[in-house]
Amino acid sequence: MNQRLHELMNWLKQENIDSAFITSTENVFYLSGFRSDPHERLLGIAVFQEAEPFLICPSLDVNDAKATGWEYEVIGCSDTDNPWDTLEKNMKSRVTNIHTMALEKEHVIVERYEQLINRFEGTKFIAAEEKLRQLRLIKNEKEKELLKKAAEFADFAVQTGVSEIKEGKTELDIIAAIEYELKKKGISEMSFSTMVLTGANAASPHGNPGLTKIKKGDFVLFDLGVVYEGYCSDITRTVAYDHFNEEQEKIYNTVLKAEIEAINATKPGVQAKDLDNIARNIITEAGYGQYFPHRLGHGLGIGVHEYPSVTNTNELIIQEGMVFTIEPGIYVPNVAGVRIEDDVFVTKDGVEILTAFPKELQIIK
Amino acid sequence: MNQRLHELMNWLKQENIDSAFITSTENVFYLSGFRSDPHERLLGIAVFQEAEPFLICPSLDVNDAKATGWEYEVIGCSDTDNPWDTLEKNMKSRVTNIHTMALEKEHVIVERYEQLINRFEGTKFIAAEEKLRQLRLIKNEKEKELLKKAAEFADFAVQTGVSEIKEGKTELDIIAAIEYELKKKGISEMSFSTMVLTGANAASPHGNPGLTKIKKGDFVLFDLGVVYEGYCSDITRTVAYDHFNEEQEKIYNTVLKAEIEAINATKPGVQAKDLDNIARNIITEAGYGQYFPHRLGHGLGIGVHEYPSVTNTNELIIQEGMVFTIEPGIYVPNVAGVRIEDDVFVTKDGVEILTAFPKELQIIK
Repeated sequence: MNQRLHELMNWLKQENIDSAFITSTENVFYLSGFRSDPHERLLGIAVFQEAEPFLICPSLDVNDAKATGWEYEVIGCSDTDNPWDTLEKNMKSRVTNIHTMALEKEHVIVERYEQLINRFEGTKFIAAEEKLRQLRLIKNEKEKELLKKAAEFADFAVQTGVSEIKEGKTELDIIAAIEYELKKKGISEMSFSTMVLTGANAASPHGNPGLTKIKKGDFVLFDLGVVYEGYCSDITRTVAYDHFNEEQEKIYNTVLKAEIEAINATKPGVQAKDLDNIARNIITEAGYGQYFPHRLGHGLGIGVHEYPSVTNTNELIIQEGMVFTIEPGIYVPNVAGVRIEDDVFVTKDGVEILTAFPKELQIIK
Repeated sequence: MNQRLHELMNWLKQENIDSAFITSTENVFYLSGFRSDPHERLLGIAVFQEAEPFLICPSLDVNDAKATGWEYEVIGCSDTDNPWDTLEKNMKSRVTNIHTMALEKEHVIVERYEQLINRFEGTKFIAAEEKLRQLRLIKNEKEKELLKKAAEFADFAVQTGVSEIKEGKTELDIIAAIEYELKKKGISEMSFSTMVLTGANAASPHGNPGLTKIKKGDFVLFDLGVVYEGYCSDITRTVAYDHFNEEQEKIYNTVLKAEIEAINATKPGVQAKDLDNIARNIITEAGYGQYFPHRLGHGLGIGVHEYPSVTNTNELIIQEGMVFTIEPGIYVPNVAGVRIEDDVFVTKDGVEILTAFPKELQIIK
């Protein structure tokens, strides 16, 4: 029995929930190791308090699902089967009267919900998300290794981007070069849409990469991440092209100080809000408080945004095994936009920083 | 009043549906011209039989939404507002008792559905999808122009890919080069994940691009499309690298004949299934029937897969203004995989082919 399933089954017992049917790509991967986008077909894992769980998927994928190491039944549905019949039959054969079923209510669409309502009459459907977020919150050693590897590719991507900076190149030119070099290394999935922003675009919280050309004296901001074996990275670096002025330098060094101090304070036992406040106070004291309009960071794992949320109000106690970003930023319209972001893994008494690209202010000539 | 909204309102009247609340990015774009991914925030268009429609979106996006030419009220919600309160209040101020509301049941998630159920007690929720698919089925002149432009970029992308073929290059190398050249032209969104498949990969219906290197004597299959101002293209071409053998040639020419004959038969009044069967019969007569495992084509527009579905059972009558793909293929394991795909716009008495890359069997040296 894998530990994750075991914990989910324990939760069902504790809360007296008869079953869970988990269908999001991320959580199916988390529970089974099988990562697949079934498009409009049905993919899910049914879990019970005592009965053996099963995985239901398109027939085409049965062998792949088994190959991931899923130890229990895999039920395939061909395109001529009604997968809801199959699901109903198999769930009811394990537990005759399902009074409660946990679902991902932020994932299941109404059309499918109505299938379940019609087939499981009288069943109460409750939300499974919060429990799954809690389960995913603490990463194990293997997950750390995958996140570390994803972070290394993110470092490489920033290095590639920085080395492409040249007068007249556009933001999209640089993105294209980054993704090209990653693809050549076998990385074809980014964890979100790559951002390269220059000058005024980097200074706008709504900047989107486009055909703006890099000019001397610009700050160039890179925000990107890759997916490596199902796990995400997320890094931001900001560099100067050719030269910078005094205010740009002050902004940069304020962000850098805020970032480093927040990282240095990260360890088990502190609250998430403490970390945000450490960075926010440094930025506010430097006179840029109003130009740091977002939270300090977010959890990272199979999803690029997961728990914990590092805001200035979250009282969550940081624990060993959490992984999150630390990414303060200052965006002064028409002056400079700077963000510096690392991914950290919380250790017994501090952090291991997964991303490693240098973060002192660099001038690219 | 824009024509699309007008038709949706007419449908509400005809079916005696009090309201519709449309939330998918594609259909909001279709009805308003505003194309935006609101992530977890609420974006939607509320439509009534008589009362004025409104668009609800994050405050940040209000100006962008107005700039698209939406003529009615735009209601912004800040991150501290409860957008469901705002929605409820504004819908009820227009129609006091909403007995029925049409939703996209394939798009709305249970969490949001429960918000609606709690706030609109006793309201019956019905599916809006089929009507919206019908509305989007016939393209106007402006949509044709955008689809044509998207198709031109797809042609360019295939040309780029073909010119990158060289001994030792991998599938991912070629994809990276294609997307790089597109980005330099300002195209940063593909309509689906670009496929370049070589040799045995092209001959497997489950092939995924990877680090396989192109070898002399391989067929190389390109399947890709771009998004241009919200509209999608989708093209497939297959070329030979260095040389080909007799069976590869026979397979290629069978697919080509099937494709051309199906295109030649396309005009208003025929049934979708007739087109599929024309191609399927040619392939079957050549002895490859079992190796053509998919439908002939699919509709194309704001979505890369929309109505009509060109299958061998769909009795839908083809009409002027429909746009769809015609893409027969033959995949013989370890021998060859060939697919040829064009996008066609149905005219008064035939078709205009939107994609233009040559399709005679080419040898790339």
